[in-house]
Amino acid sequence: MASLKDVGERALTERIIRDIRCNAHVGPGDDAACLDVNGIKIVVSSDIVTFDRHMLKGMTMEQFGWMAAAVNFSDIASMGARPIGILAAVSLPAETDEDDLYSIMKGMEECAGECGTEVIGGDTKPGNGSICGTALGVCDHKVLTRSGARPGDLVAVTGTLGSASAGWYAALNGIYDETFYAAVKPVPRIKEGMFLSSGGIATSCMDISDGLSSAAHAICGSSNVGIDITAESLPVGKGVENIVKKLKLSAADLILHGGGDYGLMFTFGKEHIDTISDMDMSVIGTVTKKKGVNLITEGISERMENKGYEHFT
Amino acid sequence: MASLKDVGERALTERIIRDIRCNAHVGPGDDAACLDVNGIKIVVSSDIVTFDRHMLKGMTMEQFGWMAAAVNFSDIASMGARPIGILAAVSLPAETDEDDLYSIMKGMEECAGECGTEVIGGDTKPGNGSICGTALGVCDHKVLTRSGARPGDLVAVTGTLGSASAGWYAALNGIYDETFYAAVKPVPRIKEGMFLSSGGIATSCMDISDGLSSAAHAICGSSNVGIDITAESLPVGKGVENIVKKLKLSAADLILHGGGDYGLMFTFGKEHIDTISDMDMSVIGTVTKKKGVNLITEGISERMENKGYEHFT
Repeated sequence: MASLKDVGERALTERIIRDIRCNAHVGPGDDAACLDVNGIKIVVSSDIVTFDRHMLKGMTMEQFGWMAAAVNFSDIASMGARPIGILAAVSLPAETDEDDLYSIMKGMEECAGECGTEVIGGDTKPGNGSICGTALGVCDHKVLTRSGARPGDLVAVTGTLGSASAGWYAALNGIYDETFYAAVKPVPRIKEGMFLSSGGIATSCMDISDGLSSAAHAICGSSNVGIDITAESLPVGKGVENIVKKLKLSAADLILHGGGDYGLMFTFGKEHIDTISDMDMSVIGTVTKKKGVNLITEGISERMENKGYEHFT
Repeated sequence: MASLKDVGERALTERIIRDIRCNAHVGPGDDAACLDVNGIKIVVSSDIVTFDRHMLKGMTMEQFGWMAAAVNFSDIASMGARPIGILAAVSLPAETDEDDLYSIMKGMEECAGECGTEVIGGDTKPGNGSICGTALGVCDHKVLTRSGARPGDLVAVTGTLGSASAGWYAALNGIYDETFYAAVKPVPRIKEGMFLSSGGIATSCMDISDGLSSAAHAICGSSNVGIDITAESLPVGKGVENIVKKLKLSAADLILHGGGDYGLMFTFGKEHIDTISDMDMSVIGTVTKKKGVNLITEGISERMENKGYEHFT
């Protein structure tokens, strides 16, 4: 007998997929499930955010609602889909001020609007503070998954790395700078995901919710390949350096393993490099035949461990 | 300022719909949201069940998982749709035995199988014991809602009333009879919902999750009509009388206001009475032009209050 915290979320999910869902026809293992409904590809994903884990010090209820929606739309983005709605199932203590519930819902509506859609339903129940969002999308072109990376492909990430993670440390220390706003208001990469899908560009894709190392390992595992990442090419987020200095943190920890940026990591054939040159993205490495994730710093290669955020443990 | 428990779930939902979602294009107010995706009608619903509220004394984790799936598929059934999948977002304390998680997932898979589909994805997070299920369905024919009842229609319910509610009292008193199994293993009325939809039979429909009075008031509110229910026609569930006697309960409370049976309440034109005569259902009343829900007992009519289960309060 082992407890959930002994096992950790990744291993739990693997065991459920292997032992309980062994006959499953759709999914599992990607950011969202994909259903073929009369030839239309519907993607759908549920993600829970909790006060305990996701309510950053100084965050408003509206920002918490935004985040609850954003983490779900990010999963839709990583599949290359167009959002068509989100459900909001909210658990709050019965003593909660009703205005807090309305603020949460406003934040979710605002994020849904940003993603071109709206809140379409949900549930409210007494509980200790969590939101289970369920975002839906339609994929008009290729469904992006974690499993198509090929040796020789380039590896890229949208936006920057480390800001959200720096923002958490900042807020814990009473600093409310640009990293704080990166942490509390992640913007799902809907347009980028749809562009990578419609142009047949990405060979694999996932969102960087639990950190770069976690995403790199997941793509390598699903695609049965390795990834070499060049340290000098990593796009460091605004304000990260400042927080690192002020709070004496490890920059590498924030950039390589910190979660919450909700960008996309994707792989693509070199022939597409010009097509995506206008995107807000950075090429950070290459896909290799040899398994494992390596970080190359000034020409020296080192194994990059999967130290991304692991729930329960 | 008021707290959630001062306001109650129904009023909270109404305010969210009125003030926050005033521009909403889909839903709200029915058991599930309905999206038109390139002409295909997708219905989707999220419902949370919690250890605190739904974990009946003596219930196994597998039965809890079944229930979490069943309450969601019941919402799909009430829209007349064919289930195409369910997502399972599970929050459990980190100290939980991992086998409990697998048992919950097995119960959800089993219920999904009973409904002709499977678990297609989900999430696991630390929390104090809740499952947010999200069921999806496709409606090939008419989408059933709460709002189409017309004066002169007949009112019917599938199955029987009161068993699940009796089962809760039974278990609390250490009695594990047929009412207990009715309470812990509700069977979603998928076939009935699809039949009522495909045949163009039902003019309105919803599931009786929070009790008969709650459902009757909801259909009346949405359809802008009244309902007269004949007490003698109410189908009393097996074992209800026995538990009522043993525990000195009010039979009327269990039958009229007790939740958990997860049958369907629907209205239909009299001309369809022969078409549905083979269904497991009972005609219990008529739709009236005059507003309000009345219970007619031995010819005497009395207002039937909405005393169904109300969350938070």
